[in-house]
Amino acid sequence: MELSSKILENAVNELATLPGVGKRSALRFALALLNSSDSDFAAFVGSLTSLKTEAHFCARCHNISDTPVCPICSNDNRNQHIVCVVENIQDVMAIENTQQYRGLYHVLGGVISPLDGIGINDLNISSLLARVKSEEIEEVILALPTTMEGDTTNIYIDRQLKAFPNVKVTTIARGIAIGDNLEYTDEITLGRSIVNRIPFEKA
Amino acid sequence: MELSSKILENAVNELATLPGVGKRSALRFALALLNSSDSDFAAFVGSLTSLKTEAHFCARCHNISDTPVCPICSNDNRNQHIVCVVENIQDVMAIENTQQYRGLYHVLGGVISPLDGIGINDLNISSLLARVKSEEIEEVILALPTTMEGDTTNIYIDRQLKAFPNVKVTTIARGIAIGDNLEYTDEITLGRSIVNRIPFEKA
Repeated sequence: MELSSKILENAVNELATLPGVGKRSALRFALALLNSSDSDFAAFVGSLTSLKTEAHFCARCHNISDTPVCPICSNDNRNQHIVCVVENIQDVMAIENTQQYRGLYHVLGGVISPLDGIGINDLNISSLLARVKSEEIEEVILALPTTMEGDTTNIYIDRQLKAFPNVKVTTIARGIAIGDNLEYTDEITLGRSIVNRIPFEKA
Repeated sequence: MELSSKILENAVNELATLPGVGKRSALRFALALLNSSDSDFAAFVGSLTSLKTEAHFCARCHNISDTPVCPICSNDNRNQHIVCVVENIQDVMAIENTQQYRGLYHVLGGVISPLDGIGINDLNISSLLARVKSEEIEEVILALPTTMEGDTTNIYIDRQLKAFPNVKVTTIARGIAIGDNLEYTDEITLGRSIVNRIPFEKA
């Protein structure tokens, strides 16, 4: 794609850095912004800038929050003794949308990944351990992705939590999605779902 | 989708105003921007701001350009006697990508659409007529969309060009796309392609 303007090309290249956006969509975005009114454009850029400069992270769980402590952590109606460890903010939203969990969260901000240069100190692990130590946590649910990196992080956290024998460490159930056919399920998931079978009445 | 941060919600709502972007994609964009480095973010916003404030439009054809007159208009190797009238900048890029046209362009910036409040004076029609008057234009190709609005605009421009009897007014060929089956072609296109049939050797 040849663009007649270097300035347009710059904007297209920057917009194409957004996840899942190709050059063609980026061009549509750029031209839409170019054609937007000055006030609409100011609102657009302003909202992004304030996201970058003003957004806080909860001091307790590291979820994004406009207040020092997020609405989930400061909600007394939630179970303050269970912490669900997730990779990122999106995972908090995904679990919240299920309306099935009434405990707290802890956002790691990633998983251990030496290839990407992400080590233990780049993640919110020490603050998790500090919470387990100081708060009356009874259960830590590990809800990290089932990748090599996620598994490594799970194992590391589990090992650190051995120092707190009263804290139960659990992980979310993996298995065949509701409505899925056995024949189309990958072998690892199907195999695990048989090994980790549960009493019939629970399902 | 419930977001725990008003600032994040604002940014998501603004990003969702981009064409074809829903709330879910907007959230991915927002979190990617939130996680980007400060310098990357500055480059991102900077490129958009300079697009909005520094991008020029060619004084002759209204195409986007970094120079007062765009590279197409100032290219002496192109046929300066043919002008192709298009709706917007994207159409210029689309035709340029075919590498089949070596004339000039004129970007109207829209088509006549009373329902959207776009009248003759909102479009670059008077500058087109001024060009036909002052430059040695021999042919005007109308390449506007085949919508009611596009047709109306075509008819209006054609009528204005009657004042220049030496200028040939043409329109791009409409017909069945190369490779398409007759049986799956809509009736209007198929009907027109029969009515507007051309000598065999030209096809």
